[in-house]
Amino acid sequence: MDNESSRILSLGGGSLLIAWQLKDKNVLIVGGGEVASQRIESILTANGQITVISPEDGLHPRTKLFIELRKDRIFYHDRKFEGPDDLFGKHMVLTAVDDIELSRKIVAMSRERRIPVNAADIPELCDFYFGAQIRDGPLQIMISTNGNGPRLASLIRTRLQNGLSGLEGEAIIKVGQLRNKLKERAPGVGGQLGRERMKWMTSLCNTWPMEDFARLDDTLMDKLLDEGWNEKKRVPIPEELGLVPERIDLPYVFASTMPIFPTIISFVAGALTVISLLSYRERS
Amino acid sequence: MDNESSRILSLGGGSLLIAWQLKDKNVLIVGGGEVASQRIESILTANGQITVISPEDGLHPRTKLFIELRKDRIFYHDRKFEGPDDLFGKHMVLTAVDDIELSRKIVAMSRERRIPVNAADIPELCDFYFGAQIRDGPLQIMISTNGNGPRLASLIRTRLQNGLSGLEGEAIIKVGQLRNKLKERAPGVGGQLGRERMKWMTSLCNTWPMEDFARLDDTLMDKLLDEGWNEKKRVPIPEELGLVPERIDLPYVFASTMPIFPTIISFVAGALTVISLLSYRERS
Repeated sequence: MDNESSRILSLGGGSLLIAWQLKDKNVLIVGGGEVASQRIESILTANGQITVISPEDGLHPRTKLFIELRKDRIFYHDRKFEGPDDLFGKHMVLTAVDDIELSRKIVAMSRERRIPVNAADIPELCDFYFGAQIRDGPLQIMISTNGNGPRLASLIRTRLQNGLSGLEGEAIIKVGQLRNKLKERAPGVGGQLGRERMKWMTSLCNTWPMEDFARLDDTLMDKLLDEGWNEKKRVPIPEELGLVPERIDLPYVFASTMPIFPTIISFVAGALTVISLLSYRERS
Repeated sequence: MDNESSRILSLGGGSLLIAWQLKDKNVLIVGGGEVASQRIESILTANGQITVISPEDGLHPRTKLFIELRKDRIFYHDRKFEGPDDLFGKHMVLTAVDDIELSRKIVAMSRERRIPVNAADIPELCDFYFGAQIRDGPLQIMISTNGNGPRLASLIRTRLQNGLSGLEGEAIIKVGQLRNKLKERAPGVGGQLGRERMKWMTSLCNTWPMEDFARLDDTLMDKLLDEGWNEKKRVPIPEELGLVPERIDLPYVFASTMPIFPTIISFVAGALTVISLLSYRERS
């Protein structure tokens, strides 16, 4: 059997990683502790509307801060969960309470109504899990160990962050703006023109160093389109727009520029060693 | 206003990245082209049960291969989508057809039944998006640009992959096994003992280089627990178990071990320069 077939036969054991859309959807969070505050942050990031149900004495300081600052997004009820009515009109339910029995009940009620539900610390009751995340503007990265060690997920996050320049988010924004400008010059959905647009954008993304996109401003974008998106449909190099090549300090690129210092010192050390050896011989 | 408050006020504009659990859930895929084949792969990865509805002449070779090899997971119907009955008992619906009107209808039917739905290429109709992914055993990483340029997502994936050693998945598996062994020695859920277990595992993960976990076998795990999980509750270093430190070839770590070669060469070059200068002076 070939490699591809064995690979297909062995597929399994993971989760379906997806980017859930919550814009203006209603999310119920039962509980107000530290975990609840993390959930609030995740839901705010996704532009969801949040209802928090928790007695005030159970609120973590960060939960309080969220409730106070984001009244536009958070409705807060200072009480315990009361029953099925609390689920009315909700598109997602998250429990973050110590009471496992209460969590089980809320999960059962949510399932009955086909509302996606997550119960903190009770993986077997969850429709979905959260994971460690990296956010840089439009760029979002999620790291899941499928329940095997959240600590390692966070160490892997650090490792991944070290491999990024920090300009990826900005580059994504600029590429989006450039694509919009291109669509203004060559309007229409799909068809031959749509394919040509996509082909040009793809060669551009494959040719340019990602960080050079982050350096584009309005004028440079127009210049890029003037010189590239014409009858020739060619991709100008960044230098043609006056973008001088820049050394990006990704950790490993930086490291590879380091040997110059030990090199010079060693050269001098070698020279001095010979000189002192010779002068010792001359004197003796 | 402090930094944290401004940060909280500006949260938004993203998605909720989650790891959806599909074990033995029923997923309907309408369509059989290249996009459908990518969907099938994602759902197989998450152990879902798949129903593919598509006339046979619309099947991509990879879709055919999946259907042929994974009869245990895929039910295939050689016909067009027929109506609401096709949604019966489904937990997720994915459309991957060129017919936008058909897609819209399927999305509306799914919404009515509160079944999460994704329509390929029609972002405004999707409950969730897919993204570029990295998989290494239990480790799954998803990269989302929130609809701004899939090409950049795939370039960022390459960049992230370069920052990984490739042993992270194996390390996660071994840490999971170690945690299970620890639970056998110190059984019980929660409480003081649970907190001590978690504390010990956390210090271990924070102290050891991640790749050393990948080198643990059954015997070494027992030794680690014998020497660490006793009245002292201490974390032995890898060397105590006979694990000789290994230089892991992460690109930047590797780079930082490089200077030794130019250093030696420079030392010799410095020495030779002085010698030749002196011998030149002597001869003249």
